[in-house]
Amino acid sequence: MEPVLFYGVPQGCSFGSIVALEWLGRPYRLCRVEMLEAWPAGYERLNPKMQTPVLLTGDGRMLTESLAILQHLAAQDLGPQGLGRAQGTPEHDRLNERLAFLSTDFFGAFGPLWTAYDRDDLDDGAKGLLRELGTQDVHRVFRVLDGLLAGRAWLVDDRRSVADAYLSGVARWADYLRVFDTRAEYPNVAAHLRKLRADPAVAFADAVERQAPATSTGAFRGHVSAEEAMSAWR
Amino acid sequence: MEPVLFYGVPQGCSFGSIVALEWLGRPYRLCRVEMLEAWPAGYERLNPKMQTPVLLTGDGRMLTESLAILQHLAAQDLGPQGLGRAQGTPEHDRLNERLAFLSTDFFGAFGPLWTAYDRDDLDDGAKGLLRELGTQDVHRVFRVLDGLLAGRAWLVDDRRSVADAYLSGVARWADYLRVFDTRAEYPNVAAHLRKLRADPAVAFADAVERQAPATSTGAFRGHVSAEEAMSAWR
Ligand SMILES: N[C@@H](CCC(=O)N[C@@H](CS)C(=O)NCC(=O)O)C(=O)O
Ligand SMILES: N[C@@H](CCC(=O)N[C@@H](CS)C(=O)NCC(=O)O)C(=O)O
Repeated sequence: MEPVLFYGVPQGCSFGSIVALEWLGRPYRLCRVEMLEAWPAGYERLNPKMQTPVLLTGDGRMLTESLAILQHLAAQDLGPQGLGRAQGTPEHDRLNERLAFLSTDFFGAFGPLWTAYDRDDLDDGAKGLLRELGTQDVHRVFRVLDGLLAGRAWLVDDRRSVADAYLSGVARWADYLRVFDTRAEYPNVAAHLRKLRADPAVAFADAVERQAPATSTGAFRGHVSAEEAMSAWR
Repeated sequence: MEPVLFYGVPQGCSFGSIVALEWLGRPYRLCRVEMLEAWPAGYERLNPKMQTPVLLTGDGRMLTESLAILQHLAAQDLGPQGLGRAQGTPEHDRLNERLAFLSTDFFGAFGPLWTAYDRDDLDDGAKGLLRELGTQDVHRVFRVLDGLLAGRAWLVDDRRSVADAYLSGVARWADYLRVFDTRAEYPNVAAHLRKLRADPAVAFADAVERQAPATSTGAFRGHVSAEEAMSAWR
């Protein structure tokens, strides 16, 4: 079977991996995981962390962690216009640096806000504290990101990479969690996100998440059920 | 100049990059950053995130993010016994996956505990809540890690990699922050950490942090001041 990406809704960071698959242009399938409902039976064998994304690779391996999935896709596209950068070059270092920042500090800044959002057992005082800490931290990482994007069209040198794909999936949390309007604050980030939102791959990932009619400009081959994908695996 | 690693004390995650530099065996220098005191003048130009580690590479670039620094070192050592794995191979995917897990979820689980530890402005109720959330999360990630290490001698296939180096720097936080005794709980992790603690490179990094006599079994060329390192950079 083609590679299958298990993506999570609502608001999964797996969004970035869908964008990267579209940009890559090689055949792939998707498997939807409703993260707030019952997860697919046997999912803990795919990913004991019980998280999305997971990529079932073309040669039958299960790969977790956005950064690892994105670098796996990037490694298939190392040409002059490619999404990846060759190991041992300064550009590869930069790509790792950007992906690491986005998946550690940037992603992590939203942690307290997600905890406040998810955990019904916490009282209002606790949620207020978490929202306050998270809000400070989200501003801090957007300030850093705004600096990284100053005078630049893309996160790594002068063309798109899997880091831009990943960003499209996690930056939107500032809006979703009502921290601030990403179209208005942090001008360099706002401009970059405006460009990303206009990208057909981002529009496709968004339509897929919403289960609206979605037009692939890559080589999307349709959804598969978790049972189907897992039976291909073993 | 040789590459210079800016490492942070106390308890920096940069510890893992020192271990990796020792294992790599190529000449390098260190620059100490006392994170609880005044940071070196001009540090924000090295790393606007105001974090350690930062690597000043042999060819004069500044590289931040542990994962990027570790993969930069790993790319210099891709042989059969090397610390790295070649781009495009399943082993490289696995190395990225392990490093990503350790630097995102595993590192991040300690976030609330560090906030409780660092922030004098929070009251006891707030600190108690953060300690409770952090403790739950640290147990969760150690459980995952214990599963990853079941029946294995190293994190990626059958020999050491930069992922093991990184782990040595962050796993110790469970002890330092008094969550639990890593020598006693989670048997697979405990066994792996026992092996790492007995490694000369880990002993060296520990002695360096404590400013005790430190014996390099790599090619450590001494400390440099931040001014010296930065003047080499520009
Ligand atoms: N470090 C992982 C984090 C993955 C993660 O946290 N995924 C979230 C969605 S963004 C998840 O699956 N959460 C599980 C849940 O909400 O139950 C990565 O970068 O892929
Ligand atoms: N994502 C970064 C995180 C770096 C980080 O958070 N470093 C901490 C030490 S472990 C730091 O420098 N903190 C600044 C401070 O404590 O003021 C990495 O993996 O290198």
